[in-house]
Amino acid sequence: MTTYSAPIRDMQFVLHDVLDISNQDLPGYGDLDRDFTQAVLEAAGKLASEVLAPLNAVGDREGCTLENGVVHTPRGFLEAFEQMREGGWTALDCDPEYGGQGMPYVIGLAAGEMFSASNMAFTMYQGLTHGAYSAIHAHGTEQQKATYLPKMVSCEWTGTMNLTEPHAGTDLGLLRTRAEPQQDGSYLITGQKIFISAGDHDMSQNVIHLVLAKAPGGGEGTKGISLFIVPKFLVDEDGSLGDRNAVSVGNLEEKMGIHGNATCVMNYDGAKGWLLGELHKGMRAMFTMMNEARIGVGLQGYSVAEAAYQNAVAYARDRLQGRAVTGDANPAGPADPLIVHPDIRRNLMDQKSFLEGARALAFWGAHLIDRAVLAEDKEAHDLVSLLTPVIKGFLTDKGFETAVQAQQVFGGHGYIEEQGMSQFVRDARIAMIYEGANGVQALDLVGRKLAAEGGKPVMAFFELVKAEIKAHEGDAALKAGFCEPLKAASKDLQSAAMFFMEQGMKNPNAALAGSYDFMHLFGHVALGLMWTRMAAAAKAALDGGTEDPAFHETKLATGRYYMARQLPMTAAHLARIRSGAEPVMALDAGRF
Amino acid sequence: MTTYSAPIRDMQFVLHDVLDISNQDLPGYGDLDRDFTQAVLEAAGKLASEVLAPLNAVGDREGCTLENGVVHTPRGFLEAFEQMREGGWTALDCDPEYGGQGMPYVIGLAAGEMFSASNMAFTMYQGLTHGAYSAIHAHGTEQQKATYLPKMVSCEWTGTMNLTEPHAGTDLGLLRTRAEPQQDGSYLITGQKIFISAGDHDMSQNVIHLVLAKAPGGGEGTKGISLFIVPKFLVDEDGSLGDRNAVSVGNLEEKMGIHGNATCVMNYDGAKGWLLGELHKGMRAMFTMMNEARIGVGLQGYSVAEAAYQNAVAYARDRLQGRAVTGDANPAGPADPLIVHPDIRRNLMDQKSFLEGARALAFWGAHLIDRAVLAEDKEAHDLVSLLTPVIKGFLTDKGFETAVQAQQVFGGHGYIEEQGMSQFVRDARIAMIYEGANGVQALDLVGRKLAAEGGKPVMAFFELVKAEIKAHEGDAALKAGFCEPLKAASKDLQSAAMFFMEQGMKNPNAALAGSYDFMHLFGHVALGLMWTRMAAAAKAALDGGTEDPAFHETKLATGRYYMARQLPMTAAHLARIRSGAEPVMALDAGRF
Repeated sequence: MTTYSAPIRDMQFVLHDVLDISNQDLPGYGDLDRDFTQAVLEAAGKLASEVLAPLNAVGDREGCTLENGVVHTPRGFLEAFEQMREGGWTALDCDPEYGGQGMPYVIGLAAGEMFSASNMAFTMYQGLTHGAYSAIHAHGTEQQKATYLPKMVSCEWTGTMNLTEPHAGTDLGLLRTRAEPQQDGSYLITGQKIFISAGDHDMSQNVIHLVLAKAPGGGEGTKGISLFIVPKFLVDEDGSLGDRNAVSVGNLEEKMGIHGNATCVMNYDGAKGWLLGELHKGMRAMFTMMNEARIGVGLQGYSVAEAAYQNAVAYARDRLQGRAVTGDANPAGPADPLIVHPDIRRNLMDQKSFLEGARALAFWGAHLIDRAVLAEDKEAHDLVSLLTPVIKGFLTDKGFETAVQAQQVFGGHGYIEEQGMSQFVRDARIAMIYEGANGVQALDLVGRKLAAEGGKPVMAFFELVKAEIKAHEGDAALKAGFCEPLKAASKDLQSAAMFFMEQGMKNPNAALAGSYDFMHLFGHVALGLMWTRMAAAAKAALDGGTEDPAFHETKLATGRYYMARQLPMTAAHLARIRSGAEPVMALDAGRF
Repeated sequence: MTTYSAPIRDMQFVLHDVLDISNQDLPGYGDLDRDFTQAVLEAAGKLASEVLAPLNAVGDREGCTLENGVVHTPRGFLEAFEQMREGGWTALDCDPEYGGQGMPYVIGLAAGEMFSASNMAFTMYQGLTHGAYSAIHAHGTEQQKATYLPKMVSCEWTGTMNLTEPHAGTDLGLLRTRAEPQQDGSYLITGQKIFISAGDHDMSQNVIHLVLAKAPGGGEGTKGISLFIVPKFLVDEDGSLGDRNAVSVGNLEEKMGIHGNATCVMNYDGAKGWLLGELHKGMRAMFTMMNEARIGVGLQGYSVAEAAYQNAVAYARDRLQGRAVTGDANPAGPADPLIVHPDIRRNLMDQKSFLEGARALAFWGAHLIDRAVLAEDKEAHDLVSLLTPVIKGFLTDKGFETAVQAQQVFGGHGYIEEQGMSQFVRDARIAMIYEGANGVQALDLVGRKLAAEGGKPVMAFFELVKAEIKAHEGDAALKAGFCEPLKAASKDLQSAAMFFMEQGMKNPNAALAGSYDFMHLFGHVALGLMWTRMAAAAKAALDGGTEDPAFHETKLATGRYYMARQLPMTAAHLARIRSGAEPVMALDAGRF
């Protein structure tokens, strides 16, 4: 019942008017002029709208099934996956040495937004493969890369990440899966992994599992963990598929959403695996993937919400109910469309102003990763490491909230599965949980990233905010509508950071008790910065006599809404943070 | 997998220490001493925990089925419904003249909290019947009351409310169901109603539908609407069941949650009906029920969240993951329980402090209804009319948010249906939608209730807040922790009301654009008032040498958390409201 339309005009605005990508001195960026990215985005958008979106409800309804150890994906997924492969979409930002198209990550992310928005559960098969590809690309031997990467770039073979065990989620130090070294240099992997997305399915010839396990001699906790490549089918010398490995699907989980993705219990019963990267350095290998993986989940959070928003707008324009208080808007009809009502507007503007800010933040994050990787820019790397928990935690929390708001526009019809709005809410929910639950993101931000490099990255962020405000000092409209609210919000963020520092020594719980609020406070300031940049770009376009003034005026009005109506949350978060650890920790555990 | 334990100690605290019910000069209240209410709540709690809670997941998994026009409820529902009936729980606060037990509504509500918390979908069969009972009790002829009420009090016959049609939800003026008057004084009802909860099922001998329809001569819009009694089986003179009426189930809706309740499309094909109340005054008859029905939905919102919270606490105590930053709490184990972590505490305290405040507000609302009905107290009636949209809108929004937070404590396990946390979230979602979507509650509050009676009810509310603050002036601890934050929050609410009044004449959209924030702002002030009252009661108990100091100290600490960490939201809502209608209404409908 739902539809999806690729927001290409908005994406082009971020890529070119805000990030000015074709003028960045980065390998591969020179080709990214407006026409080129327009063509890429249109083609990806076509696949998303015409092929993936119609399968979204099918995937939800049918889910995956496990029969005699074989996982079957929903009807139509296989053909769609072939189309995705054949269009080269799985290879978009992969290394040309292994068959990739070599585009920057920011383009891969933009296409990924459309794929996730139109069918999140489906797109995860490719997304997980991309994560495993990146891990092997970064840490694999030449032979490993030659063996696995070409097939993973094309998604003929797909990939997975195996971290969680029944008793070990966030605390990976507790994991029990063992790796026994063999004479030939390989290992035998034994243990059970759970919540393995895309763990097995019928759309690829092989599944390449990356598995965290403990090999002898590594010591206790996370120090003893190594990362292993464990293919479903062993790969012969000539690259052809050999014997079935001793890895099997124990169960498929019944979940709240993303039914089209196979979430597997994976049993490793002495499965043959090969060390990826250094022995006992598995956590470090995982961490290098984490910025990309977490930004990818932040992307899911707002992408699904974007799809929900589009359907809410269509419903609000179409559904006739009540009359505008300022006079009939549809006098010939029996009632006015929902969209005339101020509270429906408030709801839709909350969504729209968040979504466009979120896109700018995610694209900026991807651009920083490109800068870090392609130009080995350490400052960009440190800044995106700081922003990553914000992108993951804030965008998925707000993305879920946005999907709920979109569902609310439908009234009772939003609660009926047939309408499809429930699926957006159920799907969006997982993004707050996996790839590090959002509480863990907040902990990462406050406990690790804030103090990293002696606080240089966070100071650099504040400098960016300051410079942005300074740049528009002479512009009265930008100053009142954007710079001043951004300044106030940024001051709240600085005060919160200061509070943590002051408390830090005497009360380590103060920062932890305020971490979740800090993540949201940071998120609002980051979106405030994005909106100020977008407003400046829109203003420049209008001043320059753009051919599409309506687009840029809309952009300015949407930004003003964010600054006036969403940014005031920073004060509430600061007040919560300043109340310190005492109210949070006052009760004994038995008193709850 | 989930369990439910009746929070009787907390309920008794609200009933006796806060509301002091046994000393109120109201009919029936004199019997409500501590021992009596303890006995009633324990018995209701036993049914909830031991019978209804174990069926909650069964209802979700199996749902209802429609076979050859007959609706079947999930396994075990029938037997549980019989136990509910036999225990007299359906008759608790009903009129003794028709077989009820004649207890005040506040006791019915307290029992209802436990039933809804343990099994919301199941309890709706009784809840809808109670609503229809109240409508017939208030508006029926003596003969109608004698015919229907005794069987509805016992739930041998159940009831429904039929308002919505496919094209007419909030805007009932659009409805098309027709009532044709017959010679014998009855009407023939023809039309289709949707979203009819408990519309049909196999747990009662008859279903008494209350149906809104248009009879000739009533004019356009809502003015022409009348309310009709349409029984599934016609009732003969002697009270026995006669012919099947021309009403049938067209379909069962597949919903996001409350699967155990049959949400029906009802087709009326010339079904025999009898006018309830006055002709063309159907809306008025509906409205007299609305305070009770909406408070009942507010109750569902926080009740389901209470159940979710209890399971989150148990999981947080049990699940070992990570170590406390302040030193190992469980040195003998492989890790510390989740509950040591400040961010988990923050999450649980958000839940706990909301839930206990919500209970106090709902119980107070029910007590005001008792006062309005039993003592014909107009001020109580006007005050509860003002509070009703807040109780419905705020408690269901926050209830859903709380259920989501509880689910989050479980990490990935919370997303798996088997754990049961997803069901709480999916069930709680509907309470924000039905019985008037929360945007409609906000409109009711700002557009109708705020100006009702020349603003006297809202002034009375502010006076109550003022008096509460004044009463504790001499108490330093209450003053700092409760009275001062309450004063600041109340000032924000007054400023918001003032802003609406100033804008009212020149810009009617300003109040409507701020209505949703106003509802939440009001909700926080109301919970702040509740917490100040609870804190004063806890303090008095401690000063008086209570035998259970831990309970009262916990109450104080929980209240301090609410005041310090949740109440600061009022400033953010005020800032949003003060930005006015311009940012909300800036875009043309085509620009979204």
